[in-house]
Amino acid sequence: MNFLPDIGAAYLGDGKVGFRVWAPFRRSMQIRLAAPEERLVAMDREERGYWSIALENVRPGSRYTIVLDEKIERPDPASFSQPEGVHRPSEVIDLRLAGRERTWGGIALEDYIFYELHVGTFTTKGTFEAVIEKLDHISLLGATSIEIMPVAQFPGARNWGYDGAYPYAAQNSYGGAAGLRRLVDACHERGMAVTLDVVYNHLGPEGAYLRDFGPYFTRSYITPWGEAINFDDAYNDGVRNFFIQNALFWLGVFDIDALRLDAVHAIYDRSAVPFLAQLSESVRELGEKTGRPRYLIAESDLNDSRIIRPKKHWGYGLDSQWSDDFHHSLHALLTGERGGYYTDFGRLADLTTVLGEGYLYSGRYSKFRKRNHGNRSADLESKKFVVASQNHDQVGNRMLGERLSTLVSFEALKVCAATVLLSPYLPLLFMGEEYGEQAPFLYFVDHTDPELREAVRKGRREEFKEFLWEGEVPDPDSRETFLSSRLNWSRAGEGRSRALFDFYRRLIQLRRVEPALGNRERGDMEVRGLEEKQVMVVRRKSAGYELFSLYNFFEEDQVLEPSEIGIRGGWQKILDSADAQWAGPGATLPERLEKGRIVTIRASSLGLYRKIGG
Amino acid sequence: MNFLPDIGAAYLGDGKVGFRVWAPFRRSMQIRLAAPEERLVAMDREERGYWSIALENVRPGSRYTIVLDEKIERPDPASFSQPEGVHRPSEVIDLRLAGRERTWGGIALEDYIFYELHVGTFTTKGTFEAVIEKLDHISLLGATSIEIMPVAQFPGARNWGYDGAYPYAAQNSYGGAAGLRRLVDACHERGMAVTLDVVYNHLGPEGAYLRDFGPYFTRSYITPWGEAINFDDAYNDGVRNFFIQNALFWLGVFDIDALRLDAVHAIYDRSAVPFLAQLSESVRELGEKTGRPRYLIAESDLNDSRIIRPKKHWGYGLDSQWSDDFHHSLHALLTGERGGYYTDFGRLADLTTVLGEGYLYSGRYSKFRKRNHGNRSADLESKKFVVASQNHDQVGNRMLGERLSTLVSFEALKVCAATVLLSPYLPLLFMGEEYGEQAPFLYFVDHTDPELREAVRKGRREEFKEFLWEGEVPDPDSRETFLSSRLNWSRAGEGRSRALFDFYRRLIQLRRVEPALGNRERGDMEVRGLEEKQVMVVRRKSAGYELFSLYNFFEEDQVLEPSEIGIRGGWQKILDSADAQWAGPGATLPERLEKGRIVTIRASSLGLYRKIGG
Repeated sequence: MNFLPDIGAAYLGDGKVGFRVWAPFRRSMQIRLAAPEERLVAMDREERGYWSIALENVRPGSRYTIVLDEKIERPDPASFSQPEGVHRPSEVIDLRLAGRERTWGGIALEDYIFYELHVGTFTTKGTFEAVIEKLDHISLLGATSIEIMPVAQFPGARNWGYDGAYPYAAQNSYGGAAGLRRLVDACHERGMAVTLDVVYNHLGPEGAYLRDFGPYFTRSYITPWGEAINFDDAYNDGVRNFFIQNALFWLGVFDIDALRLDAVHAIYDRSAVPFLAQLSESVRELGEKTGRPRYLIAESDLNDSRIIRPKKHWGYGLDSQWSDDFHHSLHALLTGERGGYYTDFGRLADLTTVLGEGYLYSGRYSKFRKRNHGNRSADLESKKFVVASQNHDQVGNRMLGERLSTLVSFEALKVCAATVLLSPYLPLLFMGEEYGEQAPFLYFVDHTDPELREAVRKGRREEFKEFLWEGEVPDPDSRETFLSSRLNWSRAGEGRSRALFDFYRRLIQLRRVEPALGNRERGDMEVRGLEEKQVMVVRRKSAGYELFSLYNFFEEDQVLEPSEIGIRGGWQKILDSADAQWAGPGATLPERLEKGRIVTIRASSLGLYRKIGG
Repeated sequence: MNFLPDIGAAYLGDGKVGFRVWAPFRRSMQIRLAAPEERLVAMDREERGYWSIALENVRPGSRYTIVLDEKIERPDPASFSQPEGVHRPSEVIDLRLAGRERTWGGIALEDYIFYELHVGTFTTKGTFEAVIEKLDHISLLGATSIEIMPVAQFPGARNWGYDGAYPYAAQNSYGGAAGLRRLVDACHERGMAVTLDVVYNHLGPEGAYLRDFGPYFTRSYITPWGEAINFDDAYNDGVRNFFIQNALFWLGVFDIDALRLDAVHAIYDRSAVPFLAQLSESVRELGEKTGRPRYLIAESDLNDSRIIRPKKHWGYGLDSQWSDDFHHSLHALLTGERGGYYTDFGRLADLTTVLGEGYLYSGRYSKFRKRNHGNRSADLESKKFVVASQNHDQVGNRMLGERLSTLVSFEALKVCAATVLLSPYLPLLFMGEEYGEQAPFLYFVDHTDPELREAVRKGRREEFKEFLWEGEVPDPDSRETFLSSRLNWSRAGEGRSRALFDFYRRLIQLRRVEPALGNRERGDMEVRGLEEKQVMVVRRKSAGYELFSLYNFFEEDQVLEPSEIGIRGGWQKILDSADAQWAGPGATLPERLEKGRIVTIRASSLGLYRKIGG
């Protein structure tokens, strides 16, 4: 099957290339080919604003540009390769899959454990190729999918990826399309899936020339990034096609397994058939055609479960979404932070609600937002939510980019890990958290436009003006900022880092082998919070197997009364984060536990028990 | 039960009044009472931005204003009465229902036949009281509900009503709250329901001082009328309360039966629990409390059936919506007009699709909109759609405000009436169409601000700049324009006007008494179109009863072959619009019809047959 999009430059072999572009208001469109000999060829007008031309004697590697109305020369908005960056010509590349064996069958959504990584800072080389060298580490940990922060060509060499200007071109400095494809293959060879972060709500501020081609933007809505992308106004069919083909491109041509859709709340769309619903339908069809389902996972600030509800209930049909409420509940509880959006969080009851329902805000009033927020999520399957104790945003959007490892105790890191990995939801880990990486993850860019560079610097300072007592705002434009955000792999295998890694690994193993954890239906979960003590009791069961866990989020050892634990029968401890094995202070929870026993639980620790005979 | 809103001035009897207002950013709020003696009283701050004060010795009829921060003096945004217009003080009025008998039980939604009227031009006096004098005419016609164009206080005395500035105050020049209530009672006494048109998507450009009180508007969206009303941004709870209480005010305090929600497509709202869903829930609750359901009917340009789908399918739960597609299909077919939005219409197949499905555009590409439009509606009950061959918008938004009576032949008017009244949907008639009124219905305003007057004039000229060859754009600001839009009742009872009225009446009778028409489920309807001949064949059946009708939309007599009619058995004619009885040229369709017969049908006519033995 050929999943090449119907736009861009499709190399068909034997020097044949089909060029196609959408530019509904232009009077003439030409392709300028730079090599082997320079050619300027008029494109033919098709219906609905498309232009195309088939050429021969074009070699992969040839550079080309598009000339609009004989006066404006631009790279291809659907370029598959930008070898010299965002402002220079596009490149014809061969993306055919001929001869490639496909034995990868994918994994079920409920088995996903995401490992989010940023290609540029994950390794010293900062390339796709270098990520491959670390796959054994991720595989050993037990994560089942890497999740790559966006790789669409962005300006310069340093960027989180959300300033991408060419949604179809894998970043040149990371190794381009060839590098990405090798990484995907290497993951699949190890039984690991690949999730890619894609941005369909805005384009980067530098190098995106879409406005020259057509009505990609609408003036009906004002988003935080300026004009919204046109998903519901006149001519939106061309815009939608650009992004839907993009999803199919990564999933079909690169064999990627799942897409994480950045900030769907910034996709403004009031149409009767929303773009996201159309996208999920197209992805479902691709899955059917290839015999392997692909998944769409939304980042959403709307707490609107319609996004992840099925089509038959007039939902958008996305497969899952990040639960920010989970993160905020856990973070506020552990750090005591109450600034900004943490105003709305901080009680243990918030965390227990989130564990039971997915959203904390499912309709009630948010003081931070000064409005009611969210709708019902409690009836949804648990695989509809992705949860994390840290991710690129929650770390990187802090002024100093501190990871949890520098904000809470070592013991608390383990409680966090267990809260995430033993939850019924799909866990996401942020690169390095598994060994307690201490490097910050800072915001960095590498724009060429001096005005833009200064604007970003200024914007960042403005954003954190209330925090300036904490120090200087790191300069996003500086190479130092980027370098300081790199992982320090040398420390990963030593001492407490090693113990933490082993603890994460153990949690993932338990998640896999314990039937009561394998059962991800929340109906079989009971969560109680002892608010005063900041102790949480979770019971999970499935097919006769039962587990219960005690979490102490408080920073001191605590004595628990039998009524607070509330168990029957006999229980065997199978994990205790306070054990010396995990570099803890030594466990106080008994190996066996029966009804009526008073126990002491260590500060910032958790114990997991399995029912005897269960 | 007391349905007085929690804002405004609630007169409680014995001179007691409770004032309450929402103004979340103000530091002080005062009530200035003008009579009997002038008083200036500070209001007390409550939670969430509300202010209130209870006063004694206040008589109904007392004038008051609100003083914000001791410097800005304004009428009450939730004023129940503006006796001196939009810029002058509000009035305390007694709206208690004490002693009022309520025997009206309402009518079921499927029995609604709407008669839309504009209070100002419906009669010479232009008051609620004068409407009462015409109720017997409407009752005789058989319409089951009047539908009143908006009555919220607007500037001056001449306005369609969509420039309302005080959503709670019934227009002073119409007779105010007392007049409206008498009209409602008079309708109910005649077994007729009352539908009121309300505007929750914008406020008029003159006299609305809401911006002084709070964040009623948001800058996230740009609507055709400027900034959108804030239904999803910070502080929207106060804004939503203002409008939801307004709906309950008309339905609960004025005993109104249904609300027509103007242009819900201009309500921009991306929240997880949309305003419209919250509104429909509140109205449903009111219906339960009072033992009589109330209905919400949307005007919507979105063709999005989620608006009228039930809550359990994550719809907004509104009861019905206008089908513009029905109007446009019928209008384009009959008039041959193809300009503007009629570009998308004109084939007989469009009308037959709409009769079967509700929307014509249920996902496909619209040339006029240059995008895909709509979603699935075919599975919805037929009472989910309100249909018309004319209404205030379709007549009044033409440069010269021509009614169908001046655009098509007299015979075609009868075909139109039958298409609407024998459809499975809820019919709506526009005042005067039932007797072929020839007066235009023009756009008129009566602003006081000279700049605004000129802007409206200019805007109107700009809107119709392509039609100026048809004549002058009538000046919306002139009293003549208003006067020329009044109905000419003197002609109603004479000649062809009388025959047309009788024909409408007969159609409504048939709709009521024929079981096959009473059954409004579209599953039991079969519609075929003979595109070449512009002839439509409709079959309806229910519980053994069967009807079929032949519509000739072509302007000449036509011969129909048996295969084109496609009937079995014997049929008896029960209505023929070509009959001399209806001032027609004389019928050619046979009284009895059997399979195999060739018939001639008159130009622009319809015949209705009942199955013999059926």
